[in-house]
Amino acid sequence: MRAEDHDQGMDPSTGQPVGAPVGHTPIEEVDRLCRAAATAAPALAAFSPPDRAALLRALGAALEAHRDEVVALADRETGLGAARLAGELTRCVVQFELFAAALEEGSILEAVLDPADPSARPAPRPDLRRMLLPLGPVAVFAASNFPLAFSVPGGDTASALAAGCPVIVKAHPGHPALSVLCARIVADALAAAGAPAGSFALVHGVEAGRALVVHPAVTAVGFTGSVAGGRALFDLAAGRPDPIPFYGELGSLNPVVVTAGALARRAEAVVAGFVGSFTLGAGQFCTKPGLLLLPAGHGLTGALADAAGAVAVGPLLNARIRDAYLAETEALAALPGVRTISPGPAPDGAGYRVAPRLFAVGAADLVARADRLLEECFGPAALVVEYADRAELDKVFAALPGGLTATVHAELPAEAELARHLVAHCVARSGRVIWDGWPTGVAVTWAMQHGGPWPATTGSVHTSVGVTAVRRFQRPVAYQNLPQELLPPELRDGNPLGIVRRVDGVLGLA
Amino acid sequence: MRAEDHDQGMDPSTGQPVGAPVGHTPIEEVDRLCRAAATAAPALAAFSPPDRAALLRALGAALEAHRDEVVALADRETGLGAARLAGELTRCVVQFELFAAALEEGSILEAVLDPADPSARPAPRPDLRRMLLPLGPVAVFAASNFPLAFSVPGGDTASALAAGCPVIVKAHPGHPALSVLCARIVADALAAAGAPAGSFALVHGVEAGRALVVHPAVTAVGFTGSVAGGRALFDLAAGRPDPIPFYGELGSLNPVVVTAGALARRAEAVVAGFVGSFTLGAGQFCTKPGLLLLPAGHGLTGALADAAGAVAVGPLLNARIRDAYLAETEALAALPGVRTISPGPAPDGAGYRVAPRLFAVGAADLVARADRLLEECFGPAALVVEYADRAELDKVFAALPGGLTATVHAELPAEAELARHLVAHCVARSGRVIWDGWPTGVAVTWAMQHGGPWPATTGSVHTSVGVTAVRRFQRPVAYQNLPQELLPPELRDGNPLGIVRRVDGVLGLA
Repeated sequence: MRAEDHDQGMDPSTGQPVGAPVGHTPIEEVDRLCRAAATAAPALAAFSPPDRAALLRALGAALEAHRDEVVALADRETGLGAARLAGELTRCVVQFELFAAALEEGSILEAVLDPADPSARPAPRPDLRRMLLPLGPVAVFAASNFPLAFSVPGGDTASALAAGCPVIVKAHPGHPALSVLCARIVADALAAAGAPAGSFALVHGVEAGRALVVHPAVTAVGFTGSVAGGRALFDLAAGRPDPIPFYGELGSLNPVVVTAGALARRAEAVVAGFVGSFTLGAGQFCTKPGLLLLPAGHGLTGALADAAGAVAVGPLLNARIRDAYLAETEALAALPGVRTISPGPAPDGAGYRVAPRLFAVGAADLVARADRLLEECFGPAALVVEYADRAELDKVFAALPGGLTATVHAELPAEAELARHLVAHCVARSGRVIWDGWPTGVAVTWAMQHGGPWPATTGSVHTSVGVTAVRRFQRPVAYQNLPQELLPPELRDGNPLGIVRRVDGVLGLA
Repeated sequence: MRAEDHDQGMDPSTGQPVGAPVGHTPIEEVDRLCRAAATAAPALAAFSPPDRAALLRALGAALEAHRDEVVALADRETGLGAARLAGELTRCVVQFELFAAALEEGSILEAVLDPADPSARPAPRPDLRRMLLPLGPVAVFAASNFPLAFSVPGGDTASALAAGCPVIVKAHPGHPALSVLCARIVADALAAAGAPAGSFALVHGVEAGRALVVHPAVTAVGFTGSVAGGRALFDLAAGRPDPIPFYGELGSLNPVVVTAGALARRAEAVVAGFVGSFTLGAGQFCTKPGLLLLPAGHGLTGALADAAGAVAVGPLLNARIRDAYLAETEALAALPGVRTISPGPAPDGAGYRVAPRLFAVGAADLVARADRLLEECFGPAALVVEYADRAELDKVFAALPGGLTATVHAELPAEAELARHLVAHCVARSGRVIWDGWPTGVAVTWAMQHGGPWPATTGSVHTSVGVTAVRRFQRPVAYQNLPQELLPPELRDGNPLGIVRRVDGVLGLA
């Protein structure tokens, strides 16, 4: 088997193969799976919201039933540690349960009933009823860094199935055996719960992934990965004869700004929190704080160096990420104006282990070299940016690309006006604004927003985490003057499913 | 002034110029307007929902105050008739009022409050609050066929302003003087109501339009027009270094299928309704029923010819549309298998007047020549498709492109199973399914859906009409652990604005 024909899982702590190679999916097989998904789509769409909720609960239960097996294999292929991976599995289960509950409550279906109105202006109005229906087969590109939560049984899969869409996952090559195991659990659970054949499939390989994005049966794509990879697939999706939405989460710097007031009050907590956050999961979080904006003369260089030097991070996910991390941090260190705070000890040579690396630069130098310094570096590296005054802070924010998060540490009430100013900067450039905390950790809940202006995502009007992530895979349809028996139950008189609806403009259970 | 430097309004009933030429906007001026919109954006975003509602109501009142002047000029430039245009103006006013009421009710802001939960799995959860914020400056491309409702003061403008976004309209060249008048009314009303300078602008010319789509300050585009024009601009938007959403409504055939049962019961009503609908507004509705699917042997050819021959339609909007209509209908008539039901009398030569033209084709011929026969023809032309049985109907539906609407005329309970089958076809291929009616007429209401699979729109997950059209120009932002005083009022404890919110998962006024 040639290297370009298969994915081979590797143990990051040893650099040795795990399990057998997994062959790439031939294009004819991708076509067959997409056609099967298109056939499954109307049958899956016909599941009522409670029946769809039951499917999701069955998926959560199946993952739970295979917990030990899944966590052990995930750890072998990713080296992220059993505790972290068990948490990720729980997160997937909780996500299926939350989406199931949301379907039962029903407001995510956005059912709206507007009765006929003969006196409407400028013309009499017919009976109109509208709801969100499943869009159709969805392609999901799995990420490397969350081998469960942003992979086969993760957020995009859960969102698309909650919407009622068949899913075809393109496995991440970093954890092929885990992907196969999870896909089998998902597919078996769906089949056992009565979902139509073709509701779920897994493919491997770059060419299979490209074939998914341009396949006529595929109606949307969810993606988590790099800016370069995401942009290439976005362009494919937009270039189709019939363009389809491409929901890509690409890259984010997640700046944290600390004011003089916050620094004076709690410098120690800032150092500990920052180093803990940027090294979490070996710095392989999409929400890693890659930039710490500190007042010039902060006096924390020693403390930061000590803290970063004391952290032992797990190995990086694979050799490619390790090599890129080493090359990018070397290049960063060599840029004029960049000082190394913590070079990290030399890696011990076992597997893909590296040391955290922390750098510092003045705000003016950062702005002058924004093209080089404002790129995400995957892994446990971060940059301290030292600003002289608010004018410099404003220039830094003006140079910042869009991101998933932005964080403010300030003191109230003393710095209220400055805090408001900084929060406005953060809102303008990100999808989640954090006060006095750290961006790593993304709760799966109604209010979560995981998205932001380019390049954080390809479309900032949506989210990839939280209940409203389902909305990406739903299509509104209005029914005009349909007889009761031809309406979906969600829109019938008397609300037989008992879901939240908007009737004559008013939200409720009518 | 050279022809490519300006737009010249023409009276469609005479073909003579109306008013002075309106010069195309220089690119430097487009740049200045976009920068002004970017400057206005945060100030406009800071308007509370009730204040934004007041802006919208002021716009409605201003249009109403200029009703006679607007309708008269619109009629001179479009020839659509004072009654129809007065209705369009009312529709714009009603739309501003509906969106204002929706802002006051507040659920379109999607405010969500999830309290901190120390017992959340897999990890304790911080306080998270999320709402939809304005996306930023929006470019709106006006359409020719609704010179008010889908032009300067129309749905895209109202949606974007309701979302809190500055708007720059690219005028349609078919009604330049009306565009200038409406833009003045809108801009003056916004200024009088206290909106920041830069909240609204108008540009003219193809190059100005292209410059808008690629300008860094523009964050989204709304478009109504042709497939070719829309696709070109969509590609520009998707090709930006930072792609932005392009919400385009392009083209739709709006098929109407009539069963044998419906034909037996109400053939006369079908003939009258169909001819009335496809000739309405001289066939220049995006929802014109371009296809009528009748059982073979329907026996209505004579009645259809009589009805179509008896309709006197107004002139087409401009010479380009008139020439295209004549060329496309001639080409249609010459295709093998196509019969002419009503050739229409020769136009009398005054202005851009034409006669309705109606054709017929067998289902098998339609499917065989789908590439030629399933393209939208703008103007009062339509095609009767004669099907032998359900198998042929299925083949026609399989060949149909996506559309805005699809309509079923059938008899219940006798044809219940067939009706269900046809409704499923319609749902799969359109955004609005109509029972026993006609697609022209698009109510502005909560439940309206105006959109559909490609090529009806560039993105079927959204709508361009109805209250949820606002959602296209909103971006979710989550606030994590923010102190009360730094939260927007929409998300503060105690719900100071009294809007509908989701608190701890439950929708209400808490």
